[in-house]
Amino acid sequence: MNFNRKERIGAITKILADHPNKIFKLNYFTELFDSAKSSISEDIDIVKGIIDSLKMGEIITIVGASGGVKYIPHLHVDEIRALLEDLVNKLNEPSRVIPGDLIYALDILYDPKYLKKIAKIFSLYYAKESIDYVMTIETKGIPLATMTAEALNVPLAIARDENKVTEGATIGINYASGSTGRLRTMYVSKKSIKDYSNILIVDDFLRGGGTAKGMGDLVVELKSKVIGMCFLTEIDTGKEKMISDYNSLVKITKTEEGKSIARINNDVFTQLETN
Amino acid sequence: MNFNRKERIGAITKILADHPNKIFKLNYFTELFDSAKSSISEDIDIVKGIIDSLKMGEIITIVGASGGVKYIPHLHVDEIRALLEDLVNKLNEPSRVIPGDLIYALDILYDPKYLKKIAKIFSLYYAKESIDYVMTIETKGIPLATMTAEALNVPLAIARDENKVTEGATIGINYASGSTGRLRTMYVSKKSIKDYSNILIVDDFLRGGGTAKGMGDLVVELKSKVIGMCFLTEIDTGKEKMISDYNSLVKITKTEEGKSIARINNDVFTQLETN
Repeated sequence: MNFNRKERIGAITKILADHPNKIFKLNYFTELFDSAKSSISEDIDIVKGIIDSLKMGEIITIVGASGGVKYIPHLHVDEIRALLEDLVNKLNEPSRVIPGDLIYALDILYDPKYLKKIAKIFSLYYAKESIDYVMTIETKGIPLATMTAEALNVPLAIARDENKVTEGATIGINYASGSTGRLRTMYVSKKSIKDYSNILIVDDFLRGGGTAKGMGDLVVELKSKVIGMCFLTEIDTGKEKMISDYNSLVKITKTEEGKSIARINNDVFTQLETN
Repeated sequence: MNFNRKERIGAITKILADHPNKIFKLNYFTELFDSAKSSISEDIDIVKGIIDSLKMGEIITIVGASGGVKYIPHLHVDEIRALLEDLVNKLNEPSRVIPGDLIYALDILYDPKYLKKIAKIFSLYYAKESIDYVMTIETKGIPLATMTAEALNVPLAIARDENKVTEGATIGINYASGSTGRLRTMYVSKKSIKDYSNILIVDDFLRGGGTAKGMGDLVVELKSKVIGMCFLTEIDTGKEKMISDYNSLVKITKTEEGKSIARINNDVFTQLETN
């Protein structure tokens, strides 16, 4: 392709933005644009500046044989705060209370506009670690897990409530469901995760942690390792959770009158500073 | 922000690429960059040229009061063919045959790398129509439906096998499951779709069409309209389907020996030319 500098800059920005967390070798661009390495390096410096000024992410250079440049999408802290305030305000709308003292949240959980931003926050925590799969359990958390997998540029694994024929051979484990305490079984396809993989567990909701612990146990059965766990909302039950190392964006507490109130989990901001 | 032309071009490309199918008014950019309308118009023309040369999509200008520019992501026909050949070759791998003469496909259905491209094809069919929601049924098709919803910049609605408390009030309908012929029930939250919406139904798999017809019936119950149906794979059962107007990318036929063979559905290319 015969592009001049401003066209190359637009094109490089587009390519990197379309493939978050994917490493592109400089050769890829020198061949695509039939340009010298030095020109492409200068182009990338300009693209870095643009992404930086727009506070839309970070372009990092990885040195060495398998090195290149990759785009880590992220959000400015003000944008994260605005998103979390918006989420909390929405969740606190009185019209959302549904029987069982639950908060209706499907409009958030099924809206790519929100999911994309939430997934970006999750991916930001782990962008510098090596994650091989995002794992979740059916059903409500799947869209969020999908967007997180996309942001991290890795595949998804989904644990299921039933053993389905389309999964091929599965591994099943019993777990105590946090919301009911009842013993249940979850299954995952044996083929869905390669041995010795690093797993990020993602779900929409954390109560007692029984389901998350169950997924962790499945990961161990699949000879792999849990690197982290991320939840959109966490219920403050007053009791200790069955898992200890996790991130959540919103905490829901019950007042003495039994009313649920959502508030921002400020750990998000400390967590982001550490990364 | 004080950007020069090449920086504005990189930035506009990034913003449009990050928000497929979203209409941006020119004002948005004139304010963001504190630039004259004429400069921004010229920038956009250059961005159009870049996206066009890279064969990555189309930037269209919508005139009128609610007008502006929007980016329709798409794939070049050669890239679509390469994707479909890759999918078909993968599906025909002998190691994929699982009991019940099924083909294991979760690695494809749960990989954002494939899903993003498949979703782009689906969104391309409907980019010029007005879709309000993408609808699917749990579980395997949810990641694909999520990526399609993202590509079309609309929310998702998910029908479920059981009536869950977190859904609030639901509407349920009975349907004959195509794979078993058994009568089953599916539920969708009443709040998940606004009245008089346009719905695109997406699923990973089409056999008899009973499930898809069931979703269509749910849409009608929700006072809305099905605009289209898209499936990744379609089983050629030799019998007429219970639905008539749909798109699929891959057809699976059984040989006389009972072996399943996947091949590209060439209708994809005619369909894309019509759009």
